[in-house]
Amino acid sequence: MAAREGTFIAFEGGDGAGKSTQVRRLAQAFEEAGREVVITRQPGGTTLGGELRDLVLHGGAITPRAEALVFAADKAQHVEEVILPSLEEGAVVITDRYTDSAIAYQGAGRDLGAAEVAQLQDWAVDGLVPHLTVVVDIDPGEGRRRRGAVHDRMESETDGFHAAVRGHFLALAESAPGRYLVVDGAAAPDEVARLVWQRVTQDGLA
Amino acid sequence: MAAREGTFIAFEGGDGAGKSTQVRRLAQAFEEAGREVVITRQPGGTTLGGELRDLVLHGGAITPRAEALVFAADKAQHVEEVILPSLEEGAVVITDRYTDSAIAYQGAGRDLGAAEVAQLQDWAVDGLVPHLTVVVDIDPGEGRRRRGAVHDRMESETDGFHAAVRGHFLALAESAPGRYLVVDGAAAPDEVARLVWQRVTQDGLA
Repeated sequence: MAAREGTFIAFEGGDGAGKSTQVRRLAQAFEEAGREVVITRQPGGTTLGGELRDLVLHGGAITPRAEALVFAADKAQHVEEVILPSLEEGAVVITDRYTDSAIAYQGAGRDLGAAEVAQLQDWAVDGLVPHLTVVVDIDPGEGRRRRGAVHDRMESETDGFHAAVRGHFLALAESAPGRYLVVDGAAAPDEVARLVWQRVTQDGLA
Repeated sequence: MAAREGTFIAFEGGDGAGKSTQVRRLAQAFEEAGREVVITRQPGGTTLGGELRDLVLHGGAITPRAEALVFAADKAQHVEEVILPSLEEGAVVITDRYTDSAIAYQGAGRDLGAAEVAQLQDWAVDGLVPHLTVVVDIDPGEGRRRRGAVHDRMESETDGFHAAVRGHFLALAESAPGRYLVVDGAAAPDEVARLVWQRVTQDGLA
């Protein structure tokens, strides 16, 4: 199901691609157009989500399947507590990562198939699909250079893992071009922001 | 898939039915028969599981869907970290609650269908089914009298909720009598223990 009242936009892509910058730029553009904007992020967009995120990223042993379920729980809480109520009020909700990140990261390197992770994520969010998902694409080596220091377990994976993640993002975008935009994270931020806003207006989402 | 090496037995039933007593009694009987026994419980049979359990039972707001996913994560970790390694060593694993409790409790009162919770649980445990599940059946009113003080959110639900939970346990048992035993939790503990051991030996599990 697509969100009925407000506008729901997700940013996806590897670490260091510049998603956070583009989330802020797009929020600013929507605000200048007179829209109310809610910025949020995955994982960890709620109190429960923050606790779950800490358990997974900095806690002890966790199996791939348990990890996938914890991230899905975070997603379920996030949708019901933050995203849906904001959309019902007619706001623009911009999220830094959504279901595709779970599919790409868990499906890429972690023993689970992308298809079963996708099914799990779909159940977690009760089928809520963004109006537009922007994949900020970045070469894994470039992403690593931009990130600098290693922050958590996900970010310390190998370049091969990040290449597989990238492949999943691009495949998801290719499977539904009508609700995806792929932008080059290596381009100038102004240019990326311009392309995103162009697509948003073109799709009648502004 | 059924566990291939050891013996896997689950106890299910409402609160106050006397499951813990019967778990200990059965463990004792297996030990007297010379078997190595691992007793565990759901939710909370691992470090991660304990943390997740605390989040759900004593933490803040959580949606039914997120709760179902957190319990499923606990289950996944429990199976991979505790149950499977013990079964591979040939031990008897006796668990106080398993997938049926999730199906019965979440399916009974909490917005989600029992069938979709069952599917989620099956994915969490990667299809691991006990050789025998003992449902210790108890009238909800009797269970409440035995429990005494209210301990957490699950236990403070209404009798109607607990009646629905009971109905789910009995329906699950009826759907696969070959791998279920329903015993009367109101009977004398010695008699219940005798019936359980009789079935265990009859099924060639001792």
